[in-house]
Order: sequence, then C-alpha cells, then structure tokens
Amino acid sequence: MNGNIIVGQSGGPTAVINSSVAGVYTAAKAVGIEKVYGMVHGIQGFLAENFCDLGDYLESSTDIELLKRTPSAFLGSCRYKMPKFADNEAVYEKAFAIMEKYNIVALFYIGGNDSMDTVKQLSEYAAIKGKRQRFVGIPKTVDNDLPVTDHCPGYGSAAKYIAISMKEIIRDNESFGVEKPTVVIVEIMGRHAGWLTAAAALSRGEDCVGPDAIYLPEVTFDIDAFVAKIKHLAATKSSVVIAVSEGVTLADGRFVCEMGSEVTFVDAFGHKQLSGCAAVLANLVAAETGLKTRAVEFSTLQRSASHIASLTDINEAYQVGYAAVVAAYEGKTGQMITLLRNSDEPYQCGIGICDISEIANVERALPAEWITADGCDLTDGYIKYARPLIMGELPPFYVDGVPRHLVRKK
Amino acid sequence: MNGNIIVGQSGGPTAVINSSVAGVYTAAKAVGIEKVYGMVHGIQGFLAENFCDLGDYLESSTDIELLKRTPSAFLGSCRYKMPKFADNEAVYEKAFAIMEKYNIVALFYIGGNDSMDTVKQLSEYAAIKGKRQRFVGIPKTVDNDLPVTDHCPGYGSAAKYIAISMKEIIRDNESFGVEKPTVVIVEIMGRHAGWLTAAAALSRGEDCVGPDAIYLPEVTFDIDAFVAKIKHLAATKSSVVIAVSEGVTLADGRFVCEMGSEVTFVDAFGHKQLSGCAAVLANLVAAETGLKTRAVEFSTLQRSASHIASLTDINEAYQVGYAAVVAAYEGKTGQMITLLRNSDEPYQCGIGICDISEIANVERALPAEWITADGCDLTDGYIKYARPLIMGELPPFYVDGVPRHLVRKK
Repeated sequence: MNGNIIVGQSGGPTAVINSSVAGVYTAAKAVGIEKVYGMVHGIQGFLAENFCDLGDYLESSTDIELLKRTPSAFLGSCRYKMPKFADNEAVYEKAFAIMEKYNIVALFYIGGNDSMDTVKQLSEYAAIKGKRQRFVGIPKTVDNDLPVTDHCPGYGSAAKYIAISMKEIIRDNESFGVEKPTVVIVEIMGRHAGWLTAAAALSRGEDCVGPDAIYLPEVTFDIDAFVAKIKHLAATKSSVVIAVSEGVTLADGRFVCEMGSEVTFVDAFGHKQLSGCAAVLANLVAAETGLKTRAVEFSTLQRSASHIASLTDINEAYQVGYAAVVAAYEGKTGQMITLLRNSDEPYQCGIGICDISEIANVERALPAEWITADGCDLTDGYIKYARPLIMGELPPFYVDGVPRHLVRKK
Repeated sequence: MNGNIIVGQSGGPTAVINSSVAGVYTAAKAVGIEKVYGMVHGIQGFLAENFCDLGDYLESSTDIELLKRTPSAFLGSCRYKMPKFADNEAVYEKAFAIMEKYNIVALFYIGGNDSMDTVKQLSEYAAIKGKRQRFVGIPKTVDNDLPVTDHCPGYGSAAKYIAISMKEIIRDNESFGVEKPTVVIVEIMGRHAGWLTAAAALSRGEDCVGPDAIYLPEVTFDIDAFVAKIKHLAATKSSVVIAVSEGVTLADGRFVCEMGSEVTFVDAFGHKQLSGCAAVLANLVAAETGLKTRAVEFSTLQRSASHIASLTDINEAYQVGYAAVVAAYEGKTGQMITLLRNSDEPYQCGIGICDISEIANVERALPAEWITADGCDLTDGYIKYARPLIMGELPPFYVDGVPRHLVRKK
C-alpha cells in the first residue's frame, strides 16, 4: 500500500471516536504510510478538500494519549450522506480525483449506519471503475445499533456515564423523602432502540437499588399503567427515580414527547414550546399525584463525557481503528471492522471483519428476551452483555482542574 | 468533653458533605469520644430520635475513605427549620431531653444559612438555660453564599462538575457547524447568586474558548440584547454555547423561567406545563433566529456528581468537620468553622471560626467587581478565586464499572 491515507469522522460524536483516529494513525505509521490526512467535517469536508495532516498534531506518544482522552470529533463531523452513484456520478468522480491528487490509496470512515453507506458506495464505485483505492469502515455509535458487531465503540462509555449519573441522581434523591418522595424522571437518548436507556440498569448493585422502572422504545408506553406504577412506588418508597427513553411511543404511534407539542404551548412571545418526554411525564405525574417531580435529561453529555469514559471502550475503539488500517494494508476493501465476543466472564473480545453491505442502513434492536416480562426492566442477560463494556477508567490529563483536550488549530 | 456527640446533615446535598462527617468521626475518635451518633434526616429525624451509630459503618479506614467518596447526604437530609424558642419552647425542651437521654454533649450540624440558624437557636437556648451541650456549625453549600468563610465546602466540586461538563458540551457542539451553528443554552443552579453559573468560566483554557456568554442573576436580563448577542455570535462562530443561571430575572422582577408559565402551557391532559429558563430561552432563540437550539440543565448532578469531586474540596470538607469537633472539645459553642484563605498562588487556606450570628440567615452575593463590564462574563479576579477550589481529583472506588458508595442499612 504505497501512498497516503485519509480518515474521517461522521455522525454524532462519542467519547472515544478519537481513540479510533489514534488507532488508525498508529497503525499507519507502523506499516510505513507517509501521510495520514484527516477530513475536516467528514466526507462533506473531504469533498471541499478541507483536510488536515494528522502528523501536525500527533508528534509524540503523549499526543496520541491526549487524543484518546479527547471527546467528540477531533476532526469535526458531518451528517452528509453520499448520493447513490447512479444518481450523481460527478460527486464520485470528484472524490476519486481528490484522492489521486493527494495520492490517497485508502480511506477510513468512522461512523454508524449512514456512514457505512458512504463506505459501501465508494467501494462499489471503485470496484466498477477499477480504482485502486481501498475503503474500510470503523464502527462508532453510542446507539449500539449496528448489526454483526457484538457492540459498537462509543456505547460502553455512554453506558458508563448513564450508569454513574443515574446512581448519583438516585443517591441525591434518597437524601430527602422524610414525608413524601420526589419523583425524578430521567430522559436518555435513543429514539428507536433502547440500548442507551437500558444502561440505567447498570447503576444497580449492593449499594444502589437502581431505577424503579425503565421505559424502552421497544415497549408500547401506556400512560395509565405508568401513572399507576408511580403512585404505587410513591406509596411504598421514599425516593422514586424512573429512566425513560426519549423514543417511548404511545399505542397510536405518537412519541410521548409529542403529547406536548400537539396542543397549544405558546410562550409570552407567541412561540410554540417543545418539551422532551421527561418534562412531559414529570408534568403529568405532578398533576396526577400532587408529588414534587423533576425532569432530568442527560443531553449531549451522555455521548461526550470522556472524563468518565470506559477504558474497555477506549481500547476497543483504538483496536478497530488499528485493525482497519491493517485490513486495508492486506488488500481488503468494502468492509467494516467488527468486535467478536469470545466470552462474557472473563470478558474476552477479538476483532473481526465483515462485508459493508451487511452493515449499511441496517439497525439492530435490543433483543426482546432482555426485557423483563412487565416491560419495565432489563434481565440479567443484558447485564452480562453490557457490564464488561463499562469496565475500567482512563483518567484524563488534568490541567487547571479540568481535562485537557487535543484541538485542531483554526 | 465526657459523653457522646451527634452530627447531622441539612439542606441540599453536595458531593462532599459526607467528607465532613468523616472529619467529625475521625476527630471524635482522636479525642476519645465514645459514641458518634448520626441524625437520620437532620434535626427533623433527631427530634423523632431517628439516630444511627456511625461506629456501625466506620469500622476501618477504608470505610472512612469510602464515606469521603460517597455523594449526597449519607445520613439523610431535611429542610426543617427550628422555630424560634420564644415561639415554641417545647421543641427545645424535647431536644435537650433527647440529648440528655443519649448523654450527648455536643451537636454538629452541617449545612447552609438555614441550618446555621438551627445552631444559633440551640446554642442561645443552652446559654440562657445553662445547658451543658455545645453546638458547632459546619459550612456546606454548593451555592457558596455563606458570609465570613472564604468559600463553602461543596462549592468546589459543583464548580468542577460545571467546568468539566461545560467543556465537554462545547467540544460536542464544535463537532458540527459546517453550515450553521447549533445554539446550546445551559442552565445552572443558583436562584439568587451567580456563584455556580460563574463556574462555567472555568472551562476556558488554551484548548477551549469557554461559553460565549454567561448570564448571572446579579445582572438584569434583557431579552432583546440577549437575542441580538446570539445573532451576532451565530454569524461569526460555528458553535454557540451560553451559560445561564436558573435565577436570571427581567427588569420587571419576573424570573425568565416564569415567562413560560404565565401563559397557557397546557398539555393534552389539561395540565399546566412548567419549563426551566434554558428551555424558555432555547425556544425563544429558535423562533427568533431559525437556528437549531438545545437546552441543557445540569440538574442535581451538579451537586451530587462525586465521581468528579474536587480533591481540594473533599479535603477542606473533611478539615472543617474535624475542626468543629476540636473546637467543641476546647469548649467553644455557638460558632461555625470557616475557611481562611492566606494566598491564591500558591493556594493556601487555613481554618477559622466565627460567631454563628454572623452567618445565620445572611447571604453573600457574587462580588460586582468580578462581573465584566458587559455583564456577560467573569473577570480574572473570579478565576483566581475559584480555580484553586476545583484542583485535584480523588478517584472513586470502582466496583463493576461504577463508583461504590457507603449506604445506611434500612
């Protein structure tokens, strides 16, 4: 593989997406690649020749370690999806011309389902046109919804953040409750799959009861049953904490968070007000029970809180980046690196590879057998699967009391 | 000081309030106190004789270390304020009878302004009635609004959480912005004083621009100027992140968060909808600019996220607890332990003591000279003051990938 390579980041950021860049860079140097370019803002930046030279930033092993500890997309991300080449061949001609111009012989794209479609299109176009470039996908998504791979880098750190924060919120709420409990409703990302919300169950342990109920998008949300459950919990406990996916859906197909926006929520300026589902449900519970309620949203912190990233996740993100370069070096293209679990206990996970067409545009749901019969919790099967993914910590480099990050020069 | 002692926790929890209990317990053992009782749910639990024996939980130095790493009130908290003894002498007679029954010779109360009023009332009553018991207050509040003391234990850890989370949110938002920026509005606790919101400025450094504006309750909030500022920022930056106190107030005296509730926000069930000020402002900006906006609230995590507590804060919380017992042992009563800063750089802070009447029911505002001329940021004076308080980390004891906490048996 004589020439240069380029790597890009796409879609929602994660706490460990940069660890994959570190893996790509380290492997590239190990196999003798001269230049490792980074796309600034993914394939969208690539098409505008908005590149950086990673060698400018990664001069020492300390820089590599700092990159592994930097959250969100170091290179910048985008949500641009390549058109089908049958529809717009010009874009592909341009992409390959740019690669030739910079003597780029392999392209690595770190992302989820949509990003893998970009890898698929580019590799198929190259095959048809006899281009020399190789294309390898590197899995990344906090949503954990890619098929084939056992799990996705990014998920473990998001799950760890959710488990820890949920535990701290429960501990906080248990401080009070001398008379009546406060009901806390915590909204967690994942509109279509409950992987992230399920991680709330990982807060449970000898020292923590965990959330009192977990509402997943896979289970139809019943308002009456929900209120009845809260009333029962409030009558028997001094603290009630509920985890709910942003994607919980009513029997008629509406998202719970749409229950608010369909009616006239208009502020003093005449603007419509939109609320998350936790806010809608906290409001509902307060009105129906008279209890004090609090809505919490983990927001973007659940995907970018690298100060508490999982060491397992950081290492695996690095490994899939490294393996992608080795695969391309060995002549592979049109594939994505996967994680293959060999054992839960002790946890052992190896590296695999699969055809990109098995991945692109396919979503994996949370297995139904990991949801308890009442639809409001996770089974031990899920815990056995997810626990190893949140193990270990990699402390940030602290400067002035806050984690130091590696950033691009503007 | 022959006899037993009791310690209680009151008001909102913090990440380090238990470190003060650890300090009390360790000092008590050092001076030969036999039993150290804990009030379960503060003075309210005390009056119901709801005690625990801290010796049941703190059998080894590992237990002490675990307690220092446990957030929120280990003993349980309350928001009960003692009546004035002129109004209800029976409550005081009861309190002193309980102390005699358990041979309690000193009472320590960890809390903020309201809790110090309880210490004041009890100590004054004891003086008038010639009671032998001693009463010493231990400062605690994330709000940092106690007078006399340089700062309050609890503030440093909350400030560290806010600085780190703000930095991670900024990093996340900078991932995108190829075309238009997303405007993120982060709501931070502190209805009457801007101490916590100010901590957003601590995210700024060589690798982070920090929030683009910080809106404090000390400065009248001007809606038009706010929207104009956002429009200007959005025209010149690829990411806009704003910090705003939950207590920002309009010229007519209304809280910004009340702008929503005064009009008809009614959901599908006929319930009034309440929103935080970040939600109200994010909604406003979206409507006025057409930009994508996101409201983030740090919620109770800013006071209970002990996984990222400040080591300085943990140590100082321990020291004030320890010093309170030493003070009582030396015969002092009706006082509160304070922190006395000797130097900013290098940071040096000693222990002082003051009369409880200087503290009870008095609030300290953020100094006006630490707010920049435009009212939207903090000066270097604030940074010099606050930076030392967020320095250092004390890693949790991790079990199964999450921090282990010490909990009371039910």
